[in-house]
Order: sequence, then C-alpha cells, then structure tokens
Amino acid sequence: MINKLIKKIQETEAHLCVGLDPTLKFVPEQIQKETFAAYGETLEGAAEAVWQFNKGIIDATYDLIPAVKPQIAMYEQFGLPGLCAYQKTVDYAQEKGLVVIGDVKRGDIGSTSAAYAVGHLGHVQVGSKKLAGFHEDFITINPYMGSDSVNPFIDICKEEKKGLFILTKTSNPSSGEFQDRLIDGRPLYEWVGEKVADWGRDVMGDGYSYIGAVVGATYPEQGKKLRKLMPNTYILVPGYGAQGGKGEDLAYFFNKDGLGAIVNSSRGIIAAYQQKGYEKYGPENYADASRAAVIAMRDDILQALAKRAG
Amino acid sequence: MINKLIKKIQETEAHLCVGLDPTLKFVPEQIQKETFAAYGETLEGAAEAVWQFNKGIIDATYDLIPAVKPQIAMYEQFGLPGLCAYQKTVDYAQEKGLVVIGDVKRGDIGSTSAAYAVGHLGHVQVGSKKLAGFHEDFITINPYMGSDSVNPFIDICKEEKKGLFILTKTSNPSSGEFQDRLIDGRPLYEWVGEKVADWGRDVMGDGYSYIGAVVGATYPEQGKKLRKLMPNTYILVPGYGAQGGKGEDLAYFFNKDGLGAIVNSSRGIIAAYQQKGYEKYGPENYADASRAAVIAMRDDILQALAKRAG
Repeated sequence: MINKLIKKIQETEAHLCVGLDPTLKFVPEQIQKETFAAYGETLEGAAEAVWQFNKGIIDATYDLIPAVKPQIAMYEQFGLPGLCAYQKTVDYAQEKGLVVIGDVKRGDIGSTSAAYAVGHLGHVQVGSKKLAGFHEDFITINPYMGSDSVNPFIDICKEEKKGLFILTKTSNPSSGEFQDRLIDGRPLYEWVGEKVADWGRDVMGDGYSYIGAVVGATYPEQGKKLRKLMPNTYILVPGYGAQGGKGEDLAYFFNKDGLGAIVNSSRGIIAAYQQKGYEKYGPENYADASRAAVIAMRDDILQALAKRAG
Repeated sequence: MINKLIKKIQETEAHLCVGLDPTLKFVPEQIQKETFAAYGETLEGAAEAVWQFNKGIIDATYDLIPAVKPQIAMYEQFGLPGLCAYQKTVDYAQEKGLVVIGDVKRGDIGSTSAAYAVGHLGHVQVGSKKLAGFHEDFITINPYMGSDSVNPFIDICKEEKKGLFILTKTSNPSSGEFQDRLIDGRPLYEWVGEKVADWGRDVMGDGYSYIGAVVGATYPEQGKKLRKLMPNTYILVPGYGAQGGKGEDLAYFFNKDGLGAIVNSSRGIIAAYQQKGYEKYGPENYADASRAAVIAMRDDILQALAKRAG
C-alpha cells in the first residue's frame, strides 16, 4: 500500500491528503436542511449531512489527490450513525481509487491491539469466513504502550500489505509536555522515532516502509531531525494551514528524492468556502472551493520543494 | 459519576469491574450456532453472538458488581455491526444500574478530542437539539499528546458529571519501553501520574476526583508509588488474572480508607467456564461460571485488603 500511495503521489504531484474531518459547522446549510427534512434533527440526519458533504468533496477533488484522511472522532461524535457515515466515506473514497488513511490513533495491550488491527486493516474470523470490517488502507496508532501494543498492527500490515502512521511528534501546542522531555539527553519523540524506524525495517516497500510516522507541520525543526533519524519512513504531516504550519516549513519533512512526506489539511480544504480568498464560491459551491484549495496547497508544497532543490 | 461508582462499590463490597471483552473463542458454540443460523456467518451474526453472550453475563452478575468495562476494540473488530453490539451492551448495563467504563483509549489534538468527548460522554449539537452518542459513564484516554488533548475530555466531564481513567502505567509487558524511561531522574509514568492528579484537582467528587488513572496490576511496586503521588485519584487496575496480577499485589493500589482502586478482570470472568476450577459449569452454564468467578475475585480482593489492614 505504501507503493500505491507513492505511485499516486507521483502521478498527481500532490504530496497531500485531504482531511475529511467534518463538523456540522463546516457543512453548508442547504445540505443540513435537506437531511434534517428527511431524517429529523437526529444523529442519522447529522450523519447523512456529513456523508453528503464528504461525497461532494471527494467528487470535486479525487482526480487531483492521492489520499484522504478521515478523522474517525468526527464521526464517532454522532455515535453509530456517524460511524456508518465513516464507513460510507471509506468505501466511496476507495471506489474512486483513493488511498484511505483512517486517523483512528488506536493502541492497547497486545490482544486488544490485535482486535483493532483486524477491524481496521485486516479480516476477522467468523465461523468459516474471514470478513473485513472498516478496511482502511493505513491507520494512525499511538505508541505510548510500547512494542507489544504496536506489533499486532505490524503483523496485520505484513499479511494485508497495509500501513501505519505512528504518532511521533504531534502537531498540537502541548505535544511537548511529554514528547519533548529529555531521556538520556534526547527528547522522547526521538526515541519513539528511532523505534518507528526499527519497527519499519522488517516491512519495506520499494523504497519506504509500510510503517510511517506522524510529525506535526508545526514543528519543522523536530521534523528535520526526525527526517534524518528515519530515512525510510514516510511522514504524515498534520497541522498545515489551520493549525499554523506553512509550505516553506514543509521542505524539511521530505527526503532529497522529493518524497517521504504527505501533508494533511482538513479545515483548510474542506471548509475553504468559509475562508478568506474563497468567498466567491459561496456555500453552494463549497466543493469547488475545496478543489481550488487543493490546487493552491499542491502548488505551495511543490514550490517549497523546488526552492529547496534549487 | 465517581460518587455513584464509589457508592456502588461500597454496597457490593466488590472492588472490581467485569471486562466485557468478548472474542468469538469465548462465546459458547451453541450461541454462535443460533446467531449464525439467523444471520449467517456474517459480521452481524458475530455481533449478535457477542451481544447475547454479554447479556447472559450481565444478567448473571449485575447484582454483585458496581461496573462493567467493555473494551471497544473487541467490538470494532466486527466493524459497524460490532459497534451496534457495543452500544447495546452499554445501554443494557446502564439499564441494570451498572456504571459503564468504556475502554476506548482515545486522545487527539484539542478539537478532535472534543469530538470524541462529545460522542462518548457528552451531547452533540444537531440543529436545535443536543444528542448523546455512545453515552458511557467513564472512558479511558491516552495522555501521549499532552494537556490540550486531555482538557476537552475534562471539560465534558465537568458538564456531564462523568469521568475518565487516563493511561499512566499500563499492564502490558512492554509498557516500560517509553513509560519507564527516566526524565530528570524519574520515570515518565510518574510525570504522567502527577499530571493526572493535577488535572483531577479541579473536578472533585466527595473524596475522589472524576479523573482517574490506569495502572496495571502487573506492576505493584509502581502502583504503590503512584498511589502516594495521586491520593485523590481512583485507579483502574487492569491485568488481574489472565495477565498475571494477583490479589495480594493489589492492596498497594488502595488507600487506607479501603477505597481508591477498581480492579478489572476480563477473560478470568467472562471465559471462566473454559478455565481450571470451573469445568463443572460447561459452556451451557457459562454465565453461572462467570458469577462464581466474580465471587472468588471479590473475596480475593477483600482478603488482601483485610490482610493489609490487620
């Protein structure tokens, strides 16, 4: 799957994924009106609104992008109906040929991680059958519990040729509270980064491992260090745009081959129509605004890469 | 909710919760046969088997116990139908008066944690309505991303009078890989424990905070240290039984008031009928075996507490 992701990145020249993290305040009123008319002001109505919204964005951008990253929390907030919308979104994005990175940040003791791995990336044994649950292509996971909580995910990645992005240095302001604490003179995130590189060695695609890392765009210096520490690790970079990460900061997350990082933007793309510079689209053309924002982001990253290369 | 949990612990004299973590290998064959006959060998069939199994255990034990702790991974492995079984289990346990600790180990950047918090403990705004999603009473969360990933959960706990258990020192063998690393001479789990106590100060019940910690039964020495560091923090103690934790080790997790810890057992109770000493029950009476195992565990803990007090 890492090979497929890289191939799609090269074809589209878009080193980015679209974060499908809808909250109702991003969903244009006309969509909410319609779905509430059909389902009432219920979790089902909200979930249908979110799904319609996502579908519009996928339809308007799928030819330009390699991947989408739905954040499952934004669906879990609407309970079971929300998770149905998550599943529909995963299915539809895959139908459109996109790689799906499920941002689920799971992680638990071994036997429990195995259940998450099976449910999200693998197949569960039911009687004589092996059945897939959510079937994303990649998922994000949390390393706090250590190797035996990570290994079951890696085992399933091997079997299914799927991938992981493991939290290493996260994009949020207080990520340093534990992640930056020094252990034998080096911050925790470096120890985690080294482990991520270790874990990935055994599960290599053509040039990069199936096992990637999450490093926030908001921490370019740390990104630079981690890039060197994990040369064969693909880095998923959240925090571009709304969280403050800029194109020029991103160059450090890439290798000299012009690969090695995929930058996520959520609000900046899916709610572009509510933002400066995209007013002309209006809520009825929200998906066209998202398309324009994808193009701008693609070019911003390409420019940063060209600048570094030149 | 922490007050309710403590009241129920005192009424039942059971410092324990039953981990409703079903995998199909724990579910007696007759139940699987029936549900596969009705739904086929499908995710729906597996989910229905899991739900029937849980219902049997709740019916056989609810008068003896304060709480159940369903591990959501065991349901997510069966995709959406599995999560329907999770929801039914939460609903049914609450109907029976039990406190429900959703073992979900979520945690993300602020806005995303807020969505998880709303979906599991709070209410989400949908048009003019505020609707509850999974509505557990407590959930577990992961602290790796720091305060701004934890605070949205605490905010919802304040609003809804619900609670958290925050991973501090987990029960799995490789939990030490990051959690035991020394930072300024003290292991990471102590720094996390101190933060948990801090976070909890603002959200106090009568004697204990709404904000608890997870500390594995498999690490009694660390439990002893953390108990002192977090005097008003309720500790959720996984790892009893199948993972190797013993009754005598548990005394250290309690305060002198005989409170302060709730011990979880999953396999040891829900799959008791498959274990030594419970053979006489057989798969058809699996729920009675669970009841007997609850009584044995309750008494094991009470004995350990009495021994320490005497």
